[in-house]
Amino acid sequence: MAPAAPAPASAGEKQQRKTVGLAARDASGRLSPLTLTRRSTGDDDVVIKILYCGICHSDLHCMKNEWKNAIYPVVPGHEIAGVVTEVGKNVAKFKAGDKVGVGCIVNSCQSCESCSQGFENHCSAGIFTYNSVDRDGTVTYGGYSGMVVVHERFVVRFPEAMPLDKGAPLLCAGITVYTPMKYHGLDAPGKHVGVLGLGGLGHVAVKFAKAFGLTVTVISSSPGKKQEALERLGADAFVVSSNAEEMKAATGTMDGIINTVSANTPMAPFFGLLKPNGKMILVGLPENPLEIPPFALVVGNKTLAGSNIGGLPDTQEMIDFAAKHGVTADVEVIGADYVNAAMERLAKADVRYRFVIDIGNTLQAMDATE
Amino acid sequence: MAPAAPAPASAGEKQQRKTVGLAARDASGRLSPLTLTRRSTGDDDVVIKILYCGICHSDLHCMKNEWKNAIYPVVPGHEIAGVVTEVGKNVAKFKAGDKVGVGCIVNSCQSCESCSQGFENHCSAGIFTYNSVDRDGTVTYGGYSGMVVVHERFVVRFPEAMPLDKGAPLLCAGITVYTPMKYHGLDAPGKHVGVLGLGGLGHVAVKFAKAFGLTVTVISSSPGKKQEALERLGADAFVVSSNAEEMKAATGTMDGIINTVSANTPMAPFFGLLKPNGKMILVGLPENPLEIPPFALVVGNKTLAGSNIGGLPDTQEMIDFAAKHGVTADVEVIGADYVNAAMERLAKADVRYRFVIDIGNTLQAMDATE
Repeated sequence: MAPAAPAPASAGEKQQRKTVGLAARDASGRLSPLTLTRRSTGDDDVVIKILYCGICHSDLHCMKNEWKNAIYPVVPGHEIAGVVTEVGKNVAKFKAGDKVGVGCIVNSCQSCESCSQGFENHCSAGIFTYNSVDRDGTVTYGGYSGMVVVHERFVVRFPEAMPLDKGAPLLCAGITVYTPMKYHGLDAPGKHVGVLGLGGLGHVAVKFAKAFGLTVTVISSSPGKKQEALERLGADAFVVSSNAEEMKAATGTMDGIINTVSANTPMAPFFGLLKPNGKMILVGLPENPLEIPPFALVVGNKTLAGSNIGGLPDTQEMIDFAAKHGVTADVEVIGADYVNAAMERLAKADVRYRFVIDIGNTLQAMDATE
Repeated sequence: MAPAAPAPASAGEKQQRKTVGLAARDASGRLSPLTLTRRSTGDDDVVIKILYCGICHSDLHCMKNEWKNAIYPVVPGHEIAGVVTEVGKNVAKFKAGDKVGVGCIVNSCQSCESCSQGFENHCSAGIFTYNSVDRDGTVTYGGYSGMVVVHERFVVRFPEAMPLDKGAPLLCAGITVYTPMKYHGLDAPGKHVGVLGLGGLGHVAVKFAKAFGLTVTVISSSPGKKQEALERLGADAFVVSSNAEEMKAATGTMDGIINTVSANTPMAPFFGLLKPNGKMILVGLPENPLEIPPFALVVGNKTLAGSNIGGLPDTQEMIDFAAKHGVTADVEVIGADYVNAAMERLAKADVRYRFVIDIGNTLQAMDATE
C-alpha cells in the first residue's frame, strides 16, 4: 500500500469559536447579551459572519415560551443573512466571501424520503435553527448572534441583486408564502388570490402573488391599510373583513386565500370568498384550535391546508425568483440595542412590516456578559 | 314555405301524473303514504318508473329537520334506480326500457362555469332531488315514490352488469367517496388510504379504493367490524381508533383518509396518521364545527378538504367503473311497510350497510291516503 497522505484536519481538531448572542433567559422574553460557543468547522460546514437577522413573530412566541417548548437561554433568529468566512473541506457550493442566508432549519436526517425529495422541512428529525436539540446533543442558537456554523445543505446563496437586509426576512416569511402558492396551483397567471392579514407574511405574499401574475385582494380587519396595500404593495383590491357589503361582493371570487392570521379569528366567513374547489392555506399558527363548520368545507369542495416553510431547493428557488422579480421585504432596520423595544412594538403589530437587526454594525459592540 | 308538420305534443299539453310516495309530515320523521303529482313530460325529460331507492343518512336528517331546512311534506330519497317509461322529444340519450338512476341533483342552471365543466354539484342554483324548490316553484319529491320526471342531464345510465338494488346507493354513497379519491390523487395504485368510519359511505370507499389498487386501512371505533372489514370487504388492515398502540403504529403511513364520520369526534389524532402532504377528505357532515389544532395541519403540510358528491359526468364514470370492477353496495332490501322500522335501526347504525326500499314490488300496494 502507498503511504497515506496526511489526514486533513478533522472537525474535532479545529478550534471552537466564541461569539456574542442576544438571549432570552426566561418567559419575560427580555433579550440580553450572552457569549456563545459555536462548533468547530465540520467537513460539510459553512461558517457565516452574520450581518442581518430578521425578527419573526415565532421568535417572540418562543422567547416568551408561548408554545411551551422553550429551552432557555433562547437565542432566536431564523432569517439570517451574512457572508461566508470559511468552509469545510467537502464544501464545493460556497467559498469565503459569498453572500448567503440561513432560514428555519439547520439540519435533518438527510436520508429519509422527504429529505431525498428536497423537503427537509418534513423530515421528522429536522433541526430548527434555534431552540432545537441538534444531532450532537447541543441546543441550537439562532441568528441574533455574530456568527453561525451550518451544514452547507442548509445554506442558501443570495443572488447578487438581493440586498441582505431586505432579503433576510424572505428566508422565513418569503418561503412560507411562496411554497403554498407553488404547490397548490396558485402561481398561475390570472388566478385570484386573497391575502388574509397584512403583516410580515401578508405583505410578502402580496408581492409574490403579483410577481406570479395573479389578481390579489387583501382581506384585513384594518381599513387603514387599504391605501398602502393598493398603492405601495400593488394589491388589486382590498376587503375590510368586518364590512358585510364588501365581503358579500367578494363571495365566490377567489381561487385561494393565504391565511396569515395568527389570532383565533372565526374562519367560516372567509371560506365563502372561495370559488368551488378553492383553497385556504393556513400559514399562521393561532394558539387555539380552529373552529371549522363542516358545511363550509363540503359545500363547494373547499380545502383548508397547512403549509410549513419549504425545503432547501424551494428556498433557493424562492430567493432567486424574488431577486429576478424585485421582491423584497419592507423592513425597519434596527440596532441590537433596540431589540427589546422592537419586540414590544411587534407584539402590538406596530411595524411595517419586518424588523431586521443590523448585526454586523451593532451587535459586536455590545458587551457579552452572562 | 312547405306546410308545417303537425306540432309534437308540448310539455303543457301532456298529462300530469299522480303517484304514491312516502312522506314525513313533521319533525317526528314518521313516513306515511302521500299521493304526489309529477310534472308532465317536458321536451328534455325522462320519466322513470322507480324500482329501488336507497336510504341515505341525509334522508333521516331532513325528515327530522335536523338541518333546520325541511319543507314538509318531505318525500326523501336520492339513490334512485328504475326503468325509463317515456322520454321527451329532445331526449336522445335514453329510451323506454333503459335501466337508469338518479342521484342527489335533479336540476341546475346548466350554464354557469361549474355546470359547463360538468360540476353541476357546485352550481349555486343546483336543485336537490328532494326538499328543494325547483325552477318552476314546486318542491322536489325524492325517490321514496312510484315514479319521477327528471331532465335527462341528471339521469345516469345503469350498465348492464350493475344490479339496480345494489347499485342504487352508489348514486350518493358511491359518488361521494369516488370523486375525492379521483381529484385528490388517491386513485393511483400503491397509495395508502385510510377509511375512517365503516358505514354506508365507508364500506363503499373500501371497495372503490381496492378497485383503484390502493392499500386500504379501515379506522374504526368498533373492534367488532375488523373481521368483515378484512375478510369480506377486502381491507388490508384495521386500526381501532381508541387503541393507542395501533394508532401509533400507523402514524405517518397514509397518503389520504376518507373521513366518513358524521359524529363530532376529535379529528386531531387522525392527522397524525397522514404522511407529509397527506389529505383528509371530509365527506361526513357532523352537526357542530370541527376543532382543528393549527399545528396538526401546518406541520407536514396536511390538508383537510371537503367533498360534496360529484357532477353528472363523474357520476356516470363512477357507475361504469363500479360495474367494470364489481363494486356494489352491501344492501338489505326492505319493503315499503318496513321503512319506519328501518329508520330506527339506521339511527342506531344497525345496518350493514345500506337499506334499499323495494319500491317496485311493495310501494304500489300501499294506500295513498293523505
